Amino acid sequence: MNTVPTPKRIAILGSTGSIGHSTLSIVESFPERYSVVSLAAGRNVEDALAQCLRWRPRVVSMADAQLADALQRKLNANGIKDIEVVYGSAGTIRVATLPDVDFVVSAIVGVAGLEATYAAVQAGKTIGLANKECLVAAGELIIAAAREKNVALLPIDSEHNAVHQCMRGGTRQEVRNIWLTASGGPFRNMPLAEFEHITVEQALKHPTWVMGRRITVDSATMLNKGLEIIEACRLFDVPASQVKVTVHPQSTIHSLVEFVDGSILAQLSVTDMRLPVLYALSYPERVPSDLNFDLKSLSQLDFSTPDFERFPCLRLAYEAAEAGGSACIALNAADEVAVAAFLNGVIPFTSIPRTIEAVLTRMPVTHPATIPAVLEADAEARSVAREVLSSAASMATTTRI
Amino acid sequence: MNTVPTPKRIAILGSTGSIGHSTLSIVESFPERYSVVSLAAGRNVEDALAQCLRWRPRVVSMADAQLADALQRKLNANGIKDIEVVYGSAGTIRVATLPDVDFVVSAIVGVAGLEATYAAVQAGKTIGLANKECLVAAGELIIAAAREKNVALLPIDSEHNAVHQCMRGGTRQEVRNIWLTASGGPFRNMPLAEFEHITVEQALKHPTWVMGRRITVDSATMLNKGLEIIEACRLFDVPASQVKVTVHPQSTIHSLVEFVDGSILAQLSVTDMRLPVLYALSYPERVPSDLNFDLKSLSQLDFSTPDFERFPCLRLAYEAAEAGGSACIALNAADEVAVAAFLNGVIPFTSIPRTIEAVLTRMPVTHPATIPAVLEADAEARSVAREVLSSAASMATTTRI
Repeated sequence: MNTVPTPKRIAILGSTGSIGHSTLSIVESFPERYSVVSLAAGRNVEDALAQCLRWRPRVVSMADAQLADALQRKLNANGIKDIEVVYGSAGTIRVATLPDVDFVVSAIVGVAGLEATYAAVQAGKTIGLANKECLVAAGELIIAAAREKNVALLPIDSEHNAVHQCMRGGTRQEVRNIWLTASGGPFRNMPLAEFEHITVEQALKHPTWVMGRRITVDSATMLNKGLEIIEACRLFDVPASQVKVTVHPQSTIHSLVEFVDGSILAQLSVTDMRLPVLYALSYPERVPSDLNFDLKSLSQLDFSTPDFERFPCLRLAYEAAEAGGSACIALNAADEVAVAAFLNGVIPFTSIPRTIEAVLTRMPVTHPATIPAVLEADAEARSVAREVLSSAASMATTTRI
Repeated sequence: MNTVPTPKRIAILGSTGSIGHSTLSIVESFPERYSVVSLAAGRNVEDALAQCLRWRPRVVSMADAQLADALQRKLNANGIKDIEVVYGSAGTIRVATLPDVDFVVSAIVGVAGLEATYAAVQAGKTIGLANKECLVAAGELIIAAAREKNVALLPIDSEHNAVHQCMRGGTRQEVRNIWLTASGGPFRNMPLAEFEHITVEQALKHPTWVMGRRITVDSATMLNKGLEIIEACRLFDVPASQVKVTVHPQSTIHSLVEFVDGSILAQLSVTDMRLPVLYALSYPERVPSDLNFDLKSLSQLDFSTPDFERFPCLRLAYEAAEAGGSACIALNAADEVAVAAFLNGVIPFTSIPRTIEAVLTRMPVTHPATIPAVLEADAEARSVAREVLSSAASMATTTRI
């Protein structure tokens, strides 16, 4: 008699990224609990090959035909014949919807993960959600589909994962406010007058987390926290007015939930993404891990209220969250374009929120009813953002946006 | 069609004490949810009368026949005929076990509340537990009875109430450690050499909570936290090795639960006993209240490891918790005798733990199987404590215990 349960069968969308690696590290630690069925590996052929050799997935998807071909040749050279290599958005969808997949980790950065995640929800897979766009750009659609298919969406990011844990202390109706903690980024104490002169190098130095370039700048503008406000609204079905932000530089408390009786639950842990991955993969169980937070090492936790003047992106995010639909798409898309321009030295740091605001002002709010319509609105917002930037550049001799 | 549920019918053991008043304040705020059926009011006739006039309970119990008679005369003078006045331990038991009582708030200080609380458990009432002795002295008995009768024991003290809330984030088997927070009392930073000269006045100044005299001294020796360790062991079925203490002077986080995956949940709220009372009364629901904790007011939280040399009572409590049975009874009883001697100027502050240790050493560990046996062990421990104190006093010219 075998009492060990069948391992949960996992597809990872974005297997070569940071969350992908954290997920595989968890699978490595718990081979009796989790197995890898399929991977969407994107553009990193070397890493994809290494993952194929180690995990022997049934299906691997690459970003395009050329990369798929490159991987196929390397697999052949290693004498591996039993891995199906696919590519593109159809390939990612195939990875996400294989019949023997139980759980899909959605960790492709950007809108590229939307279609496959939506397809996975439609196919009834449990979703571990690490992709922001799924909730920010397509939240209304994906949440509706998840409800219809009775699919669990388990957040794999430290803040929403913390909220998910704290929500267990009561019902949705018993929640008064969700409090997301924010590190405040590198500029929370910089005089506002110096913001205009923030360099790319300064913006890329995050005090707590080591992350990608865009998300690090988003953390410096607090747009990142703004996107999380929208995610929290979608994920936990609360209006933006019930999602608050507290600046907590130590990032020890990952978020809090305030209940109607006045009690607040908070979640603390090490700042290691394997923890939310493990939580999502094992939910509703908790699996023993060595990801210990030593409470004896805790000495001081600080909190303060975020300054909306210093961080206009927060205000813009609340406005977008309330407007919903394409406003959230535009917020995210315009920010991506503006951050790229900042990283390329084209615009100053303070023009990031100005660009976003200009795009939000120009685009009427619509509520796209399909994923292609979401992608279209996203493309339009990027195009508007580029227009805003180029018209600002042409005026740059006299004024700055 | 009436959709308002029948109010929960409440008995309060210790109605004229601090928790009794907090409970009545909650009933006052939610008359549609809670009603008062019976009160055990103890020795305060004036307060008992006022509560009778306001709440019109069916039964009121006083500490003895004389006090009951005094209350009866005052009720007669006010023309009130429909309140039954009873007294003594039989009276308290009657208050606790009336057939139309749903919920018993057990808030009589000391061993006096044991019998009635045990009877309430046997009668299948839900218990809101604010009396330490129920779990410290008679924990093994009361927990066993509660399990047998499938009775919920809901803690009404800030720490265990916090733990109860955090435990909702997982199962009992998923708990790695319970972390009780301690203010550390007024002496957490005093040089150890000065402990011998601590005055009664100094010991009665608690930095956070305003409480009774014994509990304030217990907080200064941290014996109070020691009793809470034992309570946590009983209430949440964990060994003493899984109950830890962290010193947190702000008393904002009321306690924490560390799960096996490495996640920690913490509960924060205002330091107002009405909140745990409301939580216990309304559990498993949460009822909207105005007991708000303003997270915007949160600026800094400090934590440190308690110093067992400075606070030997903590070590003694761990030892008693592990030994169980009469060791826990002796810990509590010896402390009560020693604290009274300290408050009367008979022994120095540092002799409180010395007295307790001497009593623990002298008394063999037994496991009383009935409430009378618990009371007997309690009386014996008090007698041993007095012997220890008087033999120390007789030696006081040459040495000190």
